[in-house]
Amino acid sequence: MSSEIGHKLKISVFGQSHGKAIGVVVDGLPAGFRLDEEALYGFMCRRKPGTSRLTTQRKEDDRPVFLSGLVDGVTAGSPLCAVIENGDTRSGDYAGLLDLPRPSHADYTAKMRYGKAVDMRGSGHFSGRLTAPLCIAGGVAKQLLESKSIYVGAHLLSIERERDDPFPLYPTKELFDTVAQKPLPVLSDEAGARMTAAIEAARTEADSVGGVIECAAVGLPAGLGSPMFDGVENRLAAALFGVPAVKGVEFGAGFAAATMRGSEHNDPYIPGENGLLKTSKNDAGGIIGGITTGMPLVLKCAMKPTPSIGKPQQSVHLSTMEPEELMIKGRHDPCVAVRAVPVIEAVTAFTLLDILLEEQGYGND
Amino acid sequence: MSSEIGHKLKISVFGQSHGKAIGVVVDGLPAGFRLDEEALYGFMCRRKPGTSRLTTQRKEDDRPVFLSGLVDGVTAGSPLCAVIENGDTRSGDYAGLLDLPRPSHADYTAKMRYGKAVDMRGSGHFSGRLTAPLCIAGGVAKQLLESKSIYVGAHLLSIERERDDPFPLYPTKELFDTVAQKPLPVLSDEAGARMTAAIEAARTEADSVGGVIECAAVGLPAGLGSPMFDGVENRLAAALFGVPAVKGVEFGAGFAAATMRGSEHNDPYIPGENGLLKTSKNDAGGIIGGITTGMPLVLKCAMKPTPSIGKPQQSVHLSTMEPEELMIKGRHDPCVAVRAVPVIEAVTAFTLLDILLEEQGYGND
Amino acid sequence: MSSEIGHKLKISVFGQSHGKAIGVVVDGLPAGFRLDEEALYGFMCRRKPGTSRLTTQRKEDDRPVFLSGLVDGVTAGSPLCAVIENGDTRSGDYAGLLDLPRPSHADYTAKMRYGKAVDMRGSGHFSGRLTAPLCIAGGVAKQLLESKSIYVGAHLLSIERERDDPFPLYPTKELFDTVAQKPLPVLSDEAGARMTAAIEAARTEADSVGGVIECAAVGLPAGLGSPMFDGVENRLAAALFGVPAVKGVEFGAGFAAATMRGSEHNDPYIPGENGLLKTSKNDAGGIIGGITTGMPLVLKCAMKPTPSIGKPQQSVHLSTMEPEELMIKGRHDPCVAVRAVPVIEAVTAFTLLDILLEEQGYGND
Amino acid sequence: MSSEIGHKLKISVFGQSHGKAIGVVVDGLPAGFRLDEEALYGFMCRRKPGTSRLTTQRKEDDRPVFLSGLVDGVTAGSPLCAVIENGDTRSGDYAGLLDLPRPSHADYTAKMRYGKAVDMRGSGHFSGRLTAPLCIAGGVAKQLLESKSIYVGAHLLSIERERDDPFPLYPTKELFDTVAQKPLPVLSDEAGARMTAAIEAARTEADSVGGVIECAAVGLPAGLGSPMFDGVENRLAAALFGVPAVKGVEFGAGFAAATMRGSEHNDPYIPGENGLLKTSKNDAGGIIGGITTGMPLVLKCAMKPTPSIGKPQQSVHLSTMEPEELMIKGRHDPCVAVRAVPVIEAVTAFTLLDILLEEQGYGND
Repeated sequence: MSSEIGHKLKISVFGQSHGKAIGVVVDGLPAGFRLDEEALYGFMCRRKPGTSRLTTQRKEDDRPVFLSGLVDGVTAGSPLCAVIENGDTRSGDYAGLLDLPRPSHADYTAKMRYGKAVDMRGSGHFSGRLTAPLCIAGGVAKQLLESKSIYVGAHLLSIERERDDPFPLYPTKELFDTVAQKPLPVLSDEAGARMTAAIEAARTEADSVGGVIECAAVGLPAGLGSPMFDGVENRLAAALFGVPAVKGVEFGAGFAAATMRGSEHNDPYIPGENGLLKTSKNDAGGIIGGITTGMPLVLKCAMKPTPSIGKPQQSVHLSTMEPEELMIKGRHDPCVAVRAVPVIEAVTAFTLLDILLEEQGYGND
Repeated sequence: MSSEIGHKLKISVFGQSHGKAIGVVVDGLPAGFRLDEEALYGFMCRRKPGTSRLTTQRKEDDRPVFLSGLVDGVTAGSPLCAVIENGDTRSGDYAGLLDLPRPSHADYTAKMRYGKAVDMRGSGHFSGRLTAPLCIAGGVAKQLLESKSIYVGAHLLSIERERDDPFPLYPTKELFDTVAQKPLPVLSDEAGARMTAAIEAARTEADSVGGVIECAAVGLPAGLGSPMFDGVENRLAAALFGVPAVKGVEFGAGFAAATMRGSEHNDPYIPGENGLLKTSKNDAGGIIGGITTGMPLVLKCAMKPTPSIGKPQQSVHLSTMEPEELMIKGRHDPCVAVRAVPVIEAVTAFTLLDILLEEQGYGND
Repeated sequence: MSSEIGHKLKISVFGQSHGKAIGVVVDGLPAGFRLDEEALYGFMCRRKPGTSRLTTQRKEDDRPVFLSGLVDGVTAGSPLCAVIENGDTRSGDYAGLLDLPRPSHADYTAKMRYGKAVDMRGSGHFSGRLTAPLCIAGGVAKQLLESKSIYVGAHLLSIERERDDPFPLYPTKELFDTVAQKPLPVLSDEAGARMTAAIEAARTEADSVGGVIECAAVGLPAGLGSPMFDGVENRLAAALFGVPAVKGVEFGAGFAAATMRGSEHNDPYIPGENGLLKTSKNDAGGIIGGITTGMPLVLKCAMKPTPSIGKPQQSVHLSTMEPEELMIKGRHDPCVAVRAVPVIEAVTAFTLLDILLEEQGYGND
Repeated sequence: MSSEIGHKLKISVFGQSHGKAIGVVVDGLPAGFRLDEEALYGFMCRRKPGTSRLTTQRKEDDRPVFLSGLVDGVTAGSPLCAVIENGDTRSGDYAGLLDLPRPSHADYTAKMRYGKAVDMRGSGHFSGRLTAPLCIAGGVAKQLLESKSIYVGAHLLSIERERDDPFPLYPTKELFDTVAQKPLPVLSDEAGARMTAAIEAARTEADSVGGVIECAAVGLPAGLGSPMFDGVENRLAAALFGVPAVKGVEFGAGFAAATMRGSEHNDPYIPGENGLLKTSKNDAGGIIGGITTGMPLVLKCAMKPTPSIGKPQQSVHLSTMEPEELMIKGRHDPCVAVRAVPVIEAVTAFTLLDILLEEQGYGND
């Protein structure tokens, strides 16, 4: 597919819309870690649909069931498998689409890749629903990172053209927690109100909007990662592009760095604690030469607008090869970026844990 | 390090500034392909320094020598190894920097990663010089792709705030060739003149500038790649972030997609040839759900400004932990983006060939 | 752990004795293949315990439940996940063993590897029970191979010092089926009777016995695999040593080849059909230089005797570090080799399918 | 091909008989280790041909040249590349064989795998000469292991039917050194004399002989490795089958374990030092459940007789498909097992170092 990633911490996601369950296997977790299942469920709920008018109205109960890997709530060193049963699905909504590929949806590319065997209803295994297992893996990773005082958080930096404030130079766990508890995960509530209005406007017009998610990790030691192909940026990008709708990934100043001079972009060093250095600003986003600097890691993901919109669109009927207008029915998020915020956190967390575990060797408690 | 990448076509880069040679091993090339060594050298020359005032004045003769993998100029199925001898290096230029890490350079992170054993002179294996072996691998891949009528080309989309035209909806081999032969690889010569002025202005002020590179691949079949973690975007991003100075990667509309509505961003389908579809525009950049659509693949890389600048900068002496002003001597590209254009092509090419070889199975001629 | 293997067909096994379920994720199956679930269950039953006096008396219902990857019984291209619920377990049998490692069991090495967090009861994730998920993956692989007229079969070549006949030069599907239906999978029923007696004698004496399993695959094309580290032998061995109790793997004449002269060992070529060659004997076991010859692939696995025996054994109490005599209670196979026959087939089958899929590229139906 | 192996320590071998050089890239070595190049060359010489009448009479100067990875003789953290130039080759010896595949040689399988492009002369990249780069990688690994008081040694356990003594329960560095300095690496000189006679007898009769190599590693900590597919046995076997002529690999008692009862095979625990356990014998070969016990690791490799013999053999002409008698000219080892002893040590050493580095995390000096 391939639904697997990771060097030392290996994630294997499974499921499609119409199977019995979706889930994830996480192999390589250190033995002896007590998992807080309620906290994990709380994290899962952040991507849960149906919690506000800003997201799709489907009901899903995303509470994961652990089939293996835990003994009395403690990781056993064996692979952790968690599943979520598939409940409410309305495949009838997709019935008319069988030979009429939806623009900017994976219907056509899936058919070209997997042949006529592929069922286009419900988007099969391209579904955004597979981000739930990513959140299980990432939620577990977040807890392990927190036990090492490493915190990962994210917010909506922009929706359409409405912008939130960026993270401060040193984001804190408290800031991450505050943002996570809001209905719309933003720093500035005033910006949040404008974003909400933009999403509502799109919904009213049967349209959708894109957005940018900013994610940060604080508490990472300096010296994590490796140059060239095994850098922190390489590995995060390889994982983040696995989240549906991500079309761009940048670190630190990112594309803005391309408009700068070196004298403006370079981060001056200043003395830190314990013989370590800090930088007085962080345009590097916490990574130089593929390796962490010890400053907060900062990345941004561009999320395209939901391709499923309620407006008529132009397509081609695959059996006749004639142009045909398409109307998508059913329930859709007007802005996938909203629910993607915890997903980006999750993918960032399990990738960073993978890198950290490599540095630490076996490192069981 | 890790200097290896690829699933079926495996690239292993080696070398550091002060060794005897740098080079690359490419394993997994199909047997029976006749390599055009002159064309490869022509490609290598595009990243060669010292060819214009816009790049560093060091002399390097980047003609690769093939140690293995070719029999009478034809790939033998065995791993191809090519090396370039290290010639002119002036390590004295770096002598004073041993304990004074250069801002936004990998000096400090390398020391944190590899310990005190790491030699900071000349940046060791973080050197941009290692992009030469990437170009060998990519130049070979480009020829193999061309034999299948797949063409990869790139240009400078912007330098600082000066912008070239973007690629047209359907770039051609001829366009790629025309751009590649210019001293500054741009579409619009008028834009090129403005970019040249921006680079010269930075040089004059002992400063540097960043830029954006746009790269496209035409002729790819629809249906290449896989969803989730093994998508075309995931794999290209994982490789492209291995090019020094890349701080952002986006596909199609990329970050601009985040400002759009779905009705604006979605690419309408229109009938193509042989039962295939086209889209009337290409905001997807030729990839949906991790899989190629058959439209041109289009990506952009943000290149940060060269961190080595001639202005005084703030650093911290690692033995005293006292702030200290740093002056970098020596020769440096005022804009790494210029020479990075063929490197981005190279990395794109060998990654696409890797993906293509997976689709085709053994596929020897 | 690591419970993952495969290049293109990726197997990820999960479960431990005391979790809710064990299972496997199989990623990379071609889309569009109709799975015969009853035939799979029939295959699973061959490793099921409790079917004869020769194996352990625990009851397990190994019928797999498919959580994902199938739509109406046909592979969908998405990862297949199948689970088996854990039922009857008597962990009390292991209660006294917590600090007294059983000789030649993984109790001590697991504690050294994973730390004190590891639960020694029931051997955690080292359990032979995890061979059930291997059989799911292998059973599915066998069906896919059969659809390409490739057949995999195995039998008990020896138990203790009692030997069955080896496979003939060209084993057939019919032979494999006949052997598979016997209570003891052997070619010669007379040899089977002697083996049964040997196993019964061991059981009566509260002891166990080892054995050798011979496995063959017929119908493989010539030219599969690659030299050096990616050869058919390398990959089969890497997977087969994942089956508990395997202590040796050999191909063709194997260790006997070491006693031969070249003139005796070399396999003379004779003309085959369709421009292909055969060999008049098969001491190479169907593999030369890591690549299939087109002759039957033949391998043998040495299975050590079950370490859990009913006799008193010498151990050391880990808290006092004093020697202490150990008595293992509970139910144990006197000969794990018997139930391992389908497991060796399964592991051979999914490894060969992985290699075959690499040769064929995407190759969807 | 694939000529790459390793998780953290990555080996990439290149070269074929008729290229300019053969060599290896080793990525992932810890920075700061001083390499003893003379000791490495001494190790290389152990596999060098032409040193006695027992091996082929070709002249090769196997002194490796380091192109990268060392700064002043110390590992720099960057990939180490070492090459050996190809000197004396007499390809004319193979001239008549172009369409007449040699029995049990890779001529036919290579043609089936790589197509008609493959040059059959000199066996291309299947050549035993590629074991020289394996020895470079392994020789470096041996030195790193020695710096951690881990020693790897091997000897000829048997040639044809002549047997050396097995290693004692606790082999020592001194024993390894003594054996390594002998013309024929054996424990018992009397056995060595019989083996020499067996080899000479085969040579006189234009024939060849096989043999078994026993390899041991002492000083490994308990708890290295992982169960299932990432065990020490899995990884060693996957690498060892990359050595040409290996047709079987077993650990500890290996195939002999299959003839034993559990009461005979199980290794009783006895108290060791520092809270660790020992076993009073070592039929497990130092590995249980894929994880090291802390006892010496012991493995054996079955080496088939050299397929190139001077006797007439039966083959088939590939253009006419008619049977034809084949006479191989040229110089050949009558017993590849002799020169393979250091190769088996080398492959064992770099695989164990890879596993050890994973346990230790970054672990730079």
